[in-house]
Amino acid sequence: MTGTSPTRNLTTSAFLAMSLDGFIARPDGGLDWLLEAGADLEDTGYDDFFVAVDSMLIGRNTYDIVAAFDEYPYAGKRVLVLSSSLETVEWSDATVHRSLNSALETLAAEGRRHVYVDGGTVVQQFLRAGMLDNLTVSIAPVLIGFGIPLFGPLDSDVKLELTGTRELPAGFTQATYRARPPG
Amino acid sequence: MTGTSPTRNLTTSAFLAMSLDGFIARPDGGLDWLLEAGADLEDTGYDDFFVAVDSMLIGRNTYDIVAAFDEYPYAGKRVLVLSSSLETVEWSDATVHRSLNSALETLAAEGRRHVYVDGGTVVQQFLRAGMLDNLTVSIAPVLIGFGIPLFGPLDSDVKLELTGTRELPAGFTQATYRARPPG
Repeated sequence: MTGTSPTRNLTTSAFLAMSLDGFIARPDGGLDWLLEAGADLEDTGYDDFFVAVDSMLIGRNTYDIVAAFDEYPYAGKRVLVLSSSLETVEWSDATVHRSLNSALETLAAEGRRHVYVDGGTVVQQFLRAGMLDNLTVSIAPVLIGFGIPLFGPLDSDVKLELTGTRELPAGFTQATYRARPPG
Repeated sequence: MTGTSPTRNLTTSAFLAMSLDGFIARPDGGLDWLLEAGADLEDTGYDDFFVAVDSMLIGRNTYDIVAAFDEYPYAGKRVLVLSSSLETVEWSDATVHRSLNSALETLAAEGRRHVYVDGGTVVQQFLRAGMLDNLTVSIAPVLIGFGIPLFGPLDSDVKLELTGTRELPAGFTQATYRARPPG
């Protein structure tokens, strides 16, 4: 992506939790370890973060997880779902996109300013492309041994700029990075 | 291990660095990414930590790495090397042990109080056995995509107690945990 990228006016942010050994979920997607470790978590900064975004870009796995929620968590946000197989989604103000470029062009055409990128696979795509502005990782104080990794294979190293570190309640460590290369 | 463990008077500590994606080295053992990321690191707390230990317990991989150093880094420390194949080591005040139990019995018999456990495999053994008191992890602000993981498979979750989080120079985040279960 260059300076003429459709994302040049779009801030892209991810906000994720992982175990200290780097997993966002157990192999079957289970989050019991995170819910247990985070039972006493109070303000993680998520609420402020969520208010600040005007749109969400998620992958199919995240879509399936969220579709099973009792309460729809993205109310009031424009939602773009990346999927090669979904035809439509029933959420309000949501569309399906076959490619990242299609989603980015749509966000640009609609004048979106700040997109919340969620789901391990989609976050990895943004990291690989050097298109992620802000990455917040909250590290749970637990090792689970196996699972779905937050990060994945890379063609080359991705250097990050730490913008803050803080201790959250319940023994979580939160680190915030700027991930998009300068220029 | 129970209250009658030979380690009951022995404090066990690990002090490691990893990439944000959880690797202690590239697949070939390479540390270039860490040396580059940490070029501007000043005090990481390592010097104070090293002064506080009276002994070291390392694995064969760590032995090989250290044996290639120009300057011997463990001067003044009792060193125990875990290896199934090494016959002897030429370092002063160093012995080879075939099993973790043999090493722990030796440390107990010698009245050691604080052992620095180093090397991914050995640290993992201590974590799995619930025998690691202190774990300090310095997280480099870089993703390398592939490598030797700091942590590994587990039979069950290992819950950790965060004892501190701080930001180091050069964009590192350092988290310190108590890893041995209470009681």
